[in-house]
This record gives sequence, structure tokens and C-alpha cells, in this order.
Amino acid sequence: MIEVVFFDLDDTIADTSVLAERARRNAIENMIKHGLPVDFETAYNELLELINEYGSNFSRHFDYLLRRLDIPYNPKWVAAGVIGYHNTKFTQLRDVRHARKTLIRLSKAGYRLGIITDGDPIKQWEKILRLELDDFFEEVIISDFEGVKKPHPKIFQKALKVFGVSAGEAVMVGDRLYSDIYGAKGVGMHTVWFRYGKRRNAELEYREYADFVINDLLELPEVLEVLNGGEGSNKEVHAGG
Amino acid sequence: MIEVVFFDLDDTIADTSVLAERARRNAIENMIKHGLPVDFETAYNELLELINEYGSNFSRHFDYLLRRLDIPYNPKWVAAGVIGYHNTKFTQLRDVRHARKTLIRLSKAGYRLGIITDGDPIKQWEKILRLELDDFFEEVIISDFEGVKKPHPKIFQKALKVFGVSAGEAVMVGDRLYSDIYGAKGVGMHTVWFRYGKRRNAELEYREYADFVINDLLELPEVLEVLNGGEGSNKEVHAGG
Repeated sequence: MIEVVFFDLDDTIADTSVLAERARRNAIENMIKHGLPVDFETAYNELLELINEYGSNFSRHFDYLLRRLDIPYNPKWVAAGVIGYHNTKFTQLRDVRHARKTLIRLSKAGYRLGIITDGDPIKQWEKILRLELDDFFEEVIISDFEGVKKPHPKIFQKALKVFGVSAGEAVMVGDRLYSDIYGAKGVGMHTVWFRYGKRRNAELEYREYADFVINDLLELPEVLEVLNGGEGSNKEVHAGG
Repeated sequence: MIEVVFFDLDDTIADTSVLAERARRNAIENMIKHGLPVDFETAYNELLELINEYGSNFSRHFDYLLRRLDIPYNPKWVAAGVIGYHNTKFTQLRDVRHARKTLIRLSKAGYRLGIITDGDPIKQWEKILRLELDDFFEEVIISDFEGVKKPHPKIFQKALKVFGVSAGEAVMVGDRLYSDIYGAKGVGMHTVWFRYGKRRNAELEYREYADFVINDLLELPEVLEVLNGGEGSNKEVHAGG
């Protein structure tokens, strides 16, 4: 019997990829509005390259952007970038379509819920708290805290230990075939690949590790019924592998 | 003749002390709301002590607060603090009463305006841009950029040089007797002490360096008339010294 459902956070519960893109665009627009002497496409593409090289958690994106564009440092433009970015992130963060509805249904059905996520612990908690979803989750397991990243087995084993369940009693739901699905399957969990966002057309390399594939989180209750040998029809739940 | 009016930023143009206090209170309240096991007064007073010791620009206030309270680290509580703090700072920043009205009047009267401020350049610019006051000021001179703090003469001399005026053609307006008034007088500027906020009842040690004392920024046009030998009555402008 399935007892625990684990979710990835970014682009599974919190709709963050769309938000990040919008925030970056607004940052560049606000910098240009305040006099940054460069056209939008040049600056935006340079920012994407920079994020690609330094990672999205690098704290000096806008400083470095000026350097890369050979523009003399001006704290006014950095501030304009920070404002454009933050205003977007703080006001437009949303949960993924049907995430809240699904969490309510699973809670009512008696499932225990957890999050297994990579990323900066404070920033990840900020998203959960801003979305006011914290009460749904018994535990949030953040890989940075353990010194590893998904799909490292340590983070999934830690999650099972914290909840006191065996791998067979747990399901992992996530949008990343490698990090979430291959990782969870590696410790023996059941896996549900949520085809969503920029990874919905991911390469199929790790798809064999997904027991189920869903396009909408509201398909989850049915998946769980199937796993528990219930009467649910599985015609809209595509078994993977 | 006075040509340039320089303003301090914090608690002269941007109403930041009140805001910072409110932001800190909201941070603690949000941490407690999310389970921080300590009463408000204990946590708040510990935070004030910490800020006193590490400075207000220290980036790890909430981390360190948990350490000081002997509470095990929990990124959820740090995130709750960050959210409470940022939500307040980003939504409740206001200009000081009559600041905008005064800036408009001085602009219309032909004065050139500048800001001379301490603090982190990006954070200072954030305040100016969020208040949408940037178009009033020809230049913003930030002491951190010069490697000094007010009342060091370098920052005031830099301001005069950037504007291309002599000290006698410039007035400095600020709420800090030591940083703003003593500092500006040291290079020969005219000085106006703005009695405002937590420093309105400051000790009188440096008060002799204030040529004028005002309680409302709208008194400034009259001060300037007096300095320029105009017809303005000076009965509500208290000459200092």
C-alpha cells in the first residue's frame, strides 16, 4: 500500500520556470528603462548565457552582466535589474495548475505528503511559504542540506527514513526524468513523471524509469488507486517503461 | 548664490527608519507564525542587538538570530523572516512627508539637486528607483563607492567636483548632525539640519555646525531665499549656531 507521496517542488508544485523567465525579462526591461545603453535581445541573451555558466543561484547576475557587456559599473542599473526581478518573483509566483486541488484530495484520502527538492533551502522554503502550501507537507527534504543533488540516492533514502516507510510504500512525482524519476526508482520507489513545462518534451533516455506518466496533477489520485489495486480505471494513466 | 542642494537619503528623502523597524517586527512575527519557539519580545530584542553588533547590511541576520537563541537551524524560519522583512520593505517604502513636494518646488525654482549618502550602492539606488525619485537628481554620490563614510571630506568634495560648484554655492540637508551637518560644514558648504525621525532629539554636540534647523522639508525654499538674500521672512526658520 502506498502511504507517502513525495513531490518535486520546481515545476511540479511551484510554477517556477515560467516565473523565472518573466522575472529575467522584466529585469532587463527595467535596466533599459533606466538607461542601460544596450538593446533588449543582446542583454537578455547575455543574461541567459551568464545564468547558464554561473547557475541560477549566483548572486551577482546583474553586476556580471554589465561586465560582459563592457558597460561601466553603475549601481543604478543593478538596482533596476534587482527591482524588476524581485517584483516579478514576489508578486507573480503561482502554484502549478491543479497542484493545490490535488494536495487537498490526497490529504483527504489519507496520504502523507512530502517534498524532495534541490536548491537553496531558504529560497525553496520561501516559495512554499509564499504559496501557503506548508501545512500540506509533513516534511520538506532539501538536498543542499545533505550535500548532494538529485538523483543521488542519499536524498531519497533520507526521505524514506524521515517518514519511516519502505520504498515500496512511497511514490515520487516530478517533472525531471533524470533527477526525480531515475533517482527515486534507484532506491525502489514508485515513480510518476509529470510532463510539464520546459521538460515536457524531454529526451526519452530515462523514461523507462517512470511507472506512470501524467499530464495533469489531478490524474494522481487515480494513479494511486491503481497502485493500491483499487477499482480505478487506468485508461487515462499511461503506464511507462 | 546657491546653485546646488544636496540631500542625505535615509530619513531625509526616504522614510527608512520607521520602515526598517516595521520590517523587523513583521519578520519576527512571521517566524513565530511559522513555529519559531520563542516569544516576540525575546526574539525582537535579540535581533536588534544583533543588528547593532553586525550592522544593518549584514546578510545573515535571521541565520544568526537562530544561533543566538540556541535554536536549531531551520531554513523554514529563515525564509519566514526574509518574507516578512521583504514584503514590508518592498510594499511600504515611502518618501518622507513633503519630500516630493519640496523636490518639485526646488526643481521649478532652478536649483540643481543631488544626493550624498552612505550605504550599499545597490540598496540605496533601489530605494530611489522604487520611490521613482531618480529624475529629480542630477547625481547620486554614494560614499561606499569612494571607500569612505560621511563625515569624511572626500565624499563632500567629490560631490562638489561632480557638480562643478564651490562649497559656498552648495547646501547640504540631512538628519544626522555628525555625518551630514558636521561633514558638509567641514568642506565649507551651507548646512540645514532636518530634525526628523529617531535623530530629531539628537545630542547637541554638533548642532553648532547647522546654519539652519528645519522640522519640515517645505521650509527649504524659504531657507534658500534667506541664503540668497531674498525677501523671504525667516521667522519660521531657526538659525542655528
